[in-house]
Formats: sequence, C-alpha cells, structure tokens
Amino acid sequence: MEMNMFEKMQQLPFLQGLSLNSIQNILTFLKLDFNTYEENETIVHQGEQCNRLIYIIDGEFEVEYRSNTESYIFSEISTDCPHAIEAYNLFSIKRKYDHTYTFRSKGATFTISKDALNSRLLDNRIIRSNFINYLSNQTSKGISKSKFHLSSDIELRVAMFIRSNCMFDRGEKILRIKMEDLADLIDETRLNVSKVLNKWDSIGLIEQKRQNIHIPDIEKLPR
Amino acid sequence: MEMNMFEKMQQLPFLQGLSLNSIQNILTFLKLDFNTYEENETIVHQGEQCNRLIYIIDGEFEVEYRSNTESYIFSEISTDCPHAIEAYNLFSIKRKYDHTYTFRSKGATFTISKDALNSRLLDNRIIRSNFINYLSNQTSKGISKSKFHLSSDIELRVAMFIRSNCMFDRGEKILRIKMEDLADLIDETRLNVSKVLNKWDSIGLIEQKRQNIHIPDIEKLPR
Repeated sequence: MEMNMFEKMQQLPFLQGLSLNSIQNILTFLKLDFNTYEENETIVHQGEQCNRLIYIIDGEFEVEYRSNTESYIFSEISTDCPHAIEAYNLFSIKRKYDHTYTFRSKGATFTISKDALNSRLLDNRIIRSNFINYLSNQTSKGISKSKFHLSSDIELRVAMFIRSNCMFDRGEKILRIKMEDLADLIDETRLNVSKVLNKWDSIGLIEQKRQNIHIPDIEKLPR
Repeated sequence: MEMNMFEKMQQLPFLQGLSLNSIQNILTFLKLDFNTYEENETIVHQGEQCNRLIYIIDGEFEVEYRSNTESYIFSEISTDCPHAIEAYNLFSIKRKYDHTYTFRSKGATFTISKDALNSRLLDNRIIRSNFINYLSNQTSKGISKSKFHLSSDIELRVAMFIRSNCMFDRGEKILRIKMEDLADLIDETRLNVSKVLNKWDSIGLIEQKRQNIHIPDIEKLPR
C-alpha cells in the first residue's frame, strides 16, 4: 500500500474519525488480512454466508444481483473504494450476501472477522457510532423507498425499475433480461418497452445488445 | 404496572436478554420517564424531531403516514406492545419521525433519552447487539423489498400498494385516498380500481366509505 497504513485505515468505513492512537491500538489485536485479486476474480457470491467484514480497498468491481426467479441479472460497476461489503448482513437474520462481487481489474481487499468486530471494535464508541449511523441511514432509506409512486409514464417506470435495483446512485449498470420479462416486471406490453429502449438507444442513454442493456451513466436516465 | 417492573423492563425491545442484575444497574442511572395517555392523544407527530427512544408499553395505537404530496393518508391500528417507536430515526441523518403515533385507547409509554441510550445503554454488549441486530434486519428487509415485482394483476397491485405502506404485517388498516389518486399511484384507470374495491367490499375484505377504505385484516387481501 502506497499510503501510510494508519492513514489508509482511518479512511475505512466505520473506522473514520479514529485517532492514530486508536488505530495503533486496534492493530495490536487485529489480524492483518489483506488479499489481492486478479481481474475477474470473485470476492463473494450471492447466497454465500456473510461472516466477515470485507472492505474493497482498491480496484474496479462489479456488483451483480440475480433475481429469485432468475428472470433478470443486474450489474453495477464501481470504483468507489474503500467499500464495505453488505455490513448489515453480518447481523441480519439472513446472514447471506445479497449480491456477487467480482473484480473487473486487479484489486485488493482487507477483511475483519465478525468476532474481532463484535468483541473488540464495536466496544469503541466511535466505531459503534459509525456502524449504528450507517445501519440507521440504510433503514431510513429503505423506508422512504417503500413509499413508492408508480408513475403512469412508461419511460419513468423503466428507469424506476432500474434504479430500484441500484446500490450506487451513479455509474455504469448492466441489465440482462428478456424483453418480455422486463415488460412483465413493469406491467407493460413488450412493444411499449421496446419503444422506450429504442428511443434511449438512439439518444445514447443505453446500448442494447440482444438481452443485454448497457447503461453507461444511470444519472442520465429520466427521473 | 401490574407486572414486576424489572420483569417488564426485560421484555422491552433492545433490553431483552438482560439479567435482572443488569436491569437493576441500568435503573440506577436511568430517569424513569413513564407517561400515561388518554384516548386520541398523540405521542409524536410525523416530521417531529426524533431525539428519544419511546416505548409504547400499553394500549391500542394508530400509526399514520401522510404522503409527501398529501395524496393519501395510511393508518395502521396495533396493540402490539411493547413497541419501540422508529429507533432507527434516532441515528439516521433525517432524525425525524416518519409517522404520527396516536392512542386509540388509554395508553402508556416509557421513554429513554438519546443521551442515556448512547452514553450508557449501548455500552452494554447485549443491548448493543440487540440494537445492531434490529437495525441490520430492518436494512435487510428494505433491500429485499426494493427488488420488487410489479404484477400485471390489478388486484395484486392494489394489495401491493397497501402492503408497501405497512409497518405491521397484520391487523387493521385504513387508507384515506381519492379513487383517482389511487388509480394514479398504481397506474390504472379509475374504473378498474373501482371494480377491485367493489369486489373486495362485496366479499367483506374491505369496507368503503367515501374516500375511506377500511381493511379489517390485511392478511386476507390477495398475495
């Protein structure tokens, strides 16, 4: 790591705001579990047990969601590091990852065991407060989202379906889906959905390739 | 309180699993902030600052949500006590209540200040673990909900709209809305929505009175 390790630790989600002294303290008992990955290597799979806190500290990565019915696959590409992978699933009843995380470049992770987090780190008031704030904001966002408005505008509904699957508000997304399944999911005719996608394709908002809808910049889709 | 106070404290969300000894310890520094209410008295209003943890410990209460655009008002009736009111909003960025809570019978609350929670209670590992588990499950539920399926069946969509507003999976609900607004929210014609509601009314699933849809038992609506 190029940066001083202490400084890099201070930038990790949940560890922000800690003094160098506290970081040094933590490092006395924390196993330093750094890993490097090659392009296309997967970090964790959807459905796999979530029993450790993994930070993606370097690299471009893909977050993939396969719907229960396998009717669609939604991917997001991000370089937003450091990123803590689904920390809420460490303590949810489910305790399984909701998405698959794969590097699209060389990359690196740093892992903290659930035991170290639970028995040592969360005793620190700053870390505890960061962690509780993160979870509270995620819950609050989920509750706002559930008060949804189903627009009668087909373009907005396709965009809303895509946004509802997003973990990151920005960046590149890929939706792999059959046109008839997408039409079905948003309760529209295949023809109407096809018109929307063709319009978006013609003005450069998306690129369509068979069952593959590539969205270079989600922020450009209508709201 | 009829029950021994220590035993009653042990049943409160986040305090579950504490020994009588720990409860006694807590009671040495916790201000005992019990309140009684008359029927129709409001505990907190939607939009009001959330700066304390309020438990509803006794009574029948109504949880009301007014949509941003004021196009509808959704109420749930519950006797599910003890109930902790929106604990996630204590630590979310918003820090305001998402709903209004009003007693429909005589009732009672028990309040813990945010300061006592933060500086004393959450230092206890059991309380901290209960609190983090609660927030993690709420987050996990929110994420599952966001992967939604828009059914093409109008009955299911009306039911889904109602369920998306529910805090409790069971019990009595009231939706106050103009037929045209409901039609608009689920992207249907007024006539089709009206047909669904009339059918539900005829088989006893709901009772319609002007802009008031009364649902005696949400579990009976189609899924």
